[in-house]
Amino acid sequence: MKEQLTLIKVGGKIVEEEATLNQLLTDFSAIKGHKLLVHGGGRSATRMASRLGIESNMVNGRRITDAETLKVVTMVYGGLVNKNIVAGLQAKGVNAVGLTGADMDVIRSVKRPVKEVDYGFVGDVERVNAGLLNDLLHKGIVPVLAPLTHDGQGHILNTNADTIAGETAKALAQRFDVTLVYCFEKRGVLRDENDDNSVIPQLNRKEFDRYVQEGVIQGGMIPKIENALNALEAGVSKVIITLASAIGGEQGTIIS
Amino acid sequence: MKEQLTLIKVGGKIVEEEATLNQLLTDFSAIKGHKLLVHGGGRSATRMASRLGIESNMVNGRRITDAETLKVVTMVYGGLVNKNIVAGLQAKGVNAVGLTGADMDVIRSVKRPVKEVDYGFVGDVERVNAGLLNDLLHKGIVPVLAPLTHDGQGHILNTNADTIAGETAKALAQRFDVTLVYCFEKRGVLRDENDDNSVIPQLNRKEFDRYVQEGVIQGGMIPKIENALNALEAGVSKVIITLASAIGGEQGTIIS
Repeated sequence: MKEQLTLIKVGGKIVEEEATLNQLLTDFSAIKGHKLLVHGGGRSATRMASRLGIESNMVNGRRITDAETLKVVTMVYGGLVNKNIVAGLQAKGVNAVGLTGADMDVIRSVKRPVKEVDYGFVGDVERVNAGLLNDLLHKGIVPVLAPLTHDGQGHILNTNADTIAGETAKALAQRFDVTLVYCFEKRGVLRDENDDNSVIPQLNRKEFDRYVQEGVIQGGMIPKIENALNALEAGVSKVIITLASAIGGEQGTIIS
Repeated sequence: MKEQLTLIKVGGKIVEEEATLNQLLTDFSAIKGHKLLVHGGGRSATRMASRLGIESNMVNGRRITDAETLKVVTMVYGGLVNKNIVAGLQAKGVNAVGLTGADMDVIRSVKRPVKEVDYGFVGDVERVNAGLLNDLLHKGIVPVLAPLTHDGQGHILNTNADTIAGETAKALAQRFDVTLVYCFEKRGVLRDENDDNSVIPQLNRKEFDRYVQEGVIQGGMIPKIENALNALEAGVSKVIITLASAIGGEQGTIIS
């Protein structure tokens, strides 16, 4: 039987405010067994870019990453957000290590080809070094992954945190029984976005397709659930979409 | 006989300009055997602080690090500078990992006590986790240390890069035959700061004390050589102060 691994992905809003970050670190440190954290930081990046007079351009919820924006996300994701999480986890007795994809070559990507949109220095994940993550985890070290990868040719690339979580979960599913938890500001996937009590408790691909057709599920939730379904099809045991404060619990939407 | 380890410390000026950084990465990747890089980044931090409207206050060449300045150095040292070096080394076939002291608890420090000067969030190194660095090095992984440490209570602390290099060299000297190279913009310790050909080829503590008394050695060079002499007294085999372009060679000032 494979060992359990819990992979938590948290969005920017949670890691950027001291109270919610502190709660997350407490909850995360209480998780038993192997674990790994993937974080975002988009709001901090947008705020920092704005302070530096750099305009943030988003297309389909993705950041257009020119050279100046790449510097901002490298600083904010790889430095500010990542190192605060790592120092916070160390204070709670979790031996964390903050990594971008460039560190120990852990996630290699390719610069997204220019089609209708030129996303700039944005990477599509090519491979995750599961052997290396496995070594760290078995030494009791907890990887904290920033949403940055590299192309092996000296370039850092901005990479969506949901994608990093999904790809990392898939790569580790060969060695671990992986539960992937996407945390965000809602209690789960909602039937009615204005009603926090309308959580859909279970969701499979057929139901997902129907909800999308009916317009119940829309916007940024679509790629999130697509990532979840792909992860399951690639061997991940369980995917949960829930509140950060519910990690480790059984609330939220279970994708199956 | 102990294995060889070369520990290179490079200042901000070298890692902040593309041409000098690229040369450094080429020279560093050519070093045989175990190696480790410690970098600064003060000029970039000052520039970034200025763009953000944060004043940089230096006392005795050390940065007063208030809460806002701490965010800047965490971003710039831990994110921008560190990750660019790591990605650049990966492109040259060096399996680098960028670390602050918080990552894997590699360097623990204490916030500097307030005496005549309140340096703010500045750390004095307490201990370096040599066992962990040893493990990484023996796996062929090359640590790239940013000048940031942590106090184990959730705080990142700004820490002088020369000190990190010296303390890391001392900690590793029990396991390795360590050569510590301080790279800066001069060819070595100069008898006459306006004459690049006046390099003092060898320097011991007695000569150092005399040069300081005579005013030949002054300013920021004094703590640098103090660090070097302390490192030698703690078991480091050799300390060299030289140009970045001379790493691996026999130029510069050899402290003995």
